[in-house]
Amino acid sequence: MVTVTVWNEFRHERDSDDVAAVYPDGIHTVVADALRERGHDVGTATLDEPEHGLSQSVLDETDVLVWWGHKAHDEVSDEVVERVVEAVHDGMGLLVLHSGHYSKPFKRLMGTTCSLKWREVGEKERIWTVEPSHPITDGVPESFEIPHAEMYGERFDVPAPDELVFLSWFEGGEVFRSGCCYTRGTGRIFYFRPGHETYPIYEQAEIQTVLDNAVEWAAPGDGPDPYFGNAAPLEDLD
Amino acid sequence: MVTVTVWNEFRHERDSDDVAAVYPDGIHTVVADALRERGHDVGTATLDEPEHGLSQSVLDETDVLVWWGHKAHDEVSDEVVERVVEAVHDGMGLLVLHSGHYSKPFKRLMGTTCSLKWREVGEKERIWTVEPSHPITDGVPESFEIPHAEMYGERFDVPAPDELVFLSWFEGGEVFRSGCCYTRGTGRIFYFRPGHETYPIYEQAEIQTVLDNAVEWAAPGDGPDPYFGNAAPLEDLD
Amino acid sequence: MVTVTVWNEFRHERDSDDVAAVYPDGIHTVVADALRERGHDVGTATLDEPEHGLSQSVLDETDVLVWWGHKAHDEVSDEVVERVVEAVHDGMGLLVLHSGHYSKPFKRLMGTTCSLKWREVGEKERIWTVEPSHPITDGVPESFEIPHAEMYGERFDVPAPDELVFLSWFEGGEVFRSGCCYTRGTGRIFYFRPGHETYPIYEQAEIQTVLDNAVEWAAPGDGPDPYFGNAAPLEDLD
Amino acid sequence: MVTVTVWNEFRHERDSDDVAAVYPDGIHTVVADALRERGHDVGTATLDEPEHGLSQSVLDETDVLVWWGHKAHDEVSDEVVERVVEAVHDGMGLLVLHSGHYSKPFKRLMGTTCSLKWREVGEKERIWTVEPSHPITDGVPESFEIPHAEMYGERFDVPAPDELVFLSWFEGGEVFRSGCCYTRGTGRIFYFRPGHETYPIYEQAEIQTVLDNAVEWAAPGDGPDPYFGNAAPLEDLD
Repeated sequence: MVTVTVWNEFRHERDSDDVAAVYPDGIHTVVADALRERGHDVGTATLDEPEHGLSQSVLDETDVLVWWGHKAHDEVSDEVVERVVEAVHDGMGLLVLHSGHYSKPFKRLMGTTCSLKWREVGEKERIWTVEPSHPITDGVPESFEIPHAEMYGERFDVPAPDELVFLSWFEGGEVFRSGCCYTRGTGRIFYFRPGHETYPIYEQAEIQTVLDNAVEWAAPGDGPDPYFGNAAPLEDLD
Repeated sequence: MVTVTVWNEFRHERDSDDVAAVYPDGIHTVVADALRERGHDVGTATLDEPEHGLSQSVLDETDVLVWWGHKAHDEVSDEVVERVVEAVHDGMGLLVLHSGHYSKPFKRLMGTTCSLKWREVGEKERIWTVEPSHPITDGVPESFEIPHAEMYGERFDVPAPDELVFLSWFEGGEVFRSGCCYTRGTGRIFYFRPGHETYPIYEQAEIQTVLDNAVEWAAPGDGPDPYFGNAAPLEDLD
Repeated sequence: MVTVTVWNEFRHERDSDDVAAVYPDGIHTVVADALRERGHDVGTATLDEPEHGLSQSVLDETDVLVWWGHKAHDEVSDEVVERVVEAVHDGMGLLVLHSGHYSKPFKRLMGTTCSLKWREVGEKERIWTVEPSHPITDGVPESFEIPHAEMYGERFDVPAPDELVFLSWFEGGEVFRSGCCYTRGTGRIFYFRPGHETYPIYEQAEIQTVLDNAVEWAAPGDGPDPYFGNAAPLEDLD
Repeated sequence: MVTVTVWNEFRHERDSDDVAAVYPDGIHTVVADALRERGHDVGTATLDEPEHGLSQSVLDETDVLVWWGHKAHDEVSDEVVERVVEAVHDGMGLLVLHSGHYSKPFKRLMGTTCSLKWREVGEKERIWTVEPSHPITDGVPESFEIPHAEMYGERFDVPAPDELVFLSWFEGGEVFRSGCCYTRGTGRIFYFRPGHETYPIYEQAEIQTVLDNAVEWAAPGDGPDPYFGNAAPLEDLD
């Protein structure tokens, strides 16, 4: 069991009938329920709460933070962004979903623009598992389809992932590195491309399995807490 | 709980009084006991058993194979080597210890010479954890000493590891990539440098913790079983 | 200028009218001409020559070996394979083309099965550059099409590449890691997927540019020649 | 020939007699001269110049920026830092020296704290080449000593390098990943540990060879300029 906080901008669902029709209680609710059903201890937080729902005490008790944002990345305060980044450096896992590629915490942790190609025409996406030994693929088929998706295409301007787990094929002719693992500080980060506010992608069983696995993978371990700073010699010096 | 088979050449311990004084029942026994105490289901196998104790049925029931060899690498039959390599390709974990760098299965899986520098004068080794988020470092200190060790020094002629977990410092002036993670097929491989037949290194608590973690890390998961071969199109072709 | 040897099985072109119509003088001739036009010093070698044209003296004078094989992988003698593998370990570059994924030297250097999915219906392939800073992409477009190709699809059972340069999209619904960089010993290896014996893929300008770049990238450098074996201490020992 | 700008904080040399004794004209002058002697077109820039000497037009004409900073990282304006980061994203190489690990541009591009252990007692450092096929090692010995160095020890809190070229051994018992390659956007970054303001390390031939090689390696190539943003489909959609 991992303690998870699912963060959602939670604007689309209140502003757009199309989005509300798919995610009436917000994307965070669907993601949180899916993780809860799989045994995790899950809370939620949203942009318009005080401190965006991400106070220091919330982060201190979070093993893995799941991040959904799209239209209002700029409204996330720099103070909260730094708090999230520090929490990741100190070991909190971070699961960045779909349009979260342009979120402040992800860009800050990647050090790149995180730009990509995109197209929103509801085309088919097929996800291929390229690293079937990775724990994030447990119970995931070798390939599966998302009937209607927003396309994200390469070049995806991120650092080469430490581990590349999934690739996407799009009907319109593009490919994408859709499941990318990183470590920053002692925190593990998984970027997962699928998901969109007007398609019920987070209801798909395969997607929920990946989210569950990613939460397990990103949860902090019990490795050493490194010492930084001035250090006395461990050996006699001449 | 992981099902482990600890393989040992088991010659030194019978041929040399110096080795027998440290490992009277064989290195495999000490390693196996340490893993058993940590809850794993552990068997052993040795070079002079039929099929070196590694029949197909033994491998079929092994999650992780631990390999110790030193003087008699060439006596391991190519048939058994291919069997081990195939098992790794199919998901079995492999934990290669110290002088196992020159074993046939490791060289076969790495595709390189696996050569290195060495010196046996009982100097001090200090192991540094460089990737403290890695599960193999759970409960391991940031650094720890091995009072007397055989030196292995760079250049270590292996592929760049997928994940580099430990580095060694040696009193005589060398460094070494001492904890190296690889995936080959769907099998996970961990090369762990420490250990020697005339020093009680496998009795050290830190070393046993690493072995335990490595066995957990290398155990096969439940990812998809890839299909290989001729494949019908998934989309209509013009 | 790099000294290149282009190796070809050279069977298809003599056995099949379809292949001969596309590559009347052999695939090696087209590849060699393309590299020669770009300023390299290029020789060729084929399976049915003595020692397959790959005597020790030929390899000693080769900076980069280009490998095409398809139907007769098993006819390449193990002695020549070991000679090629040793030359790579000692710094010779190796450029493995298309169906060369199943060649003995490539499998030997990768340590995996190198299996994949395949289909031969002449569908469209589109190649995407995912790492535009890599020297192998100099002068290469961000994406380009191959009108008719044999499909190779993931899972491609190779070690995770040190650098992933190209991805392929296929009309039938698959994706593939089509440009993969490795180092084994001090030799650099580039696997490049495109190319087929019944399509004039090696006549395409983009493909020839990649081959040229890859030859430059894989050519041996002037780094240190590591010492292996017993080593005296560099520091005073207590 | 690469167009290089060597940036120096240039405070130590004017504030401290000890530093001025070693680098009377500034560290940038020694580094610039070494690169000029090796055929590069080298300019310099310092903190106290307008815009720290790093106007947009200077960066526009710089292939590779070399960065030395130590005491005054915080005085580098955020505007210039963003300008440098964007230039790297767009292909400019960046060579970060020693205490530059804590510079704003490096931390910004890494997304981590870049913390480490340190000690300044003038102990011996020995640098080991672990990846002798890498172009940055051309003409560099397998190992070489720096008689007196400031120690930097692991854990170095950076992302796992794309390529790890050098490791350091320190007399006092630590190790360090001293030559680390990264790509961010289309810019190549090399972190090189050695160098200190009170030791004549940049006068050492081996160090100057590495700087020369690193500048060549980091120089921008001629790969495709990726398109980002909304993209029309390349295939007919159903």
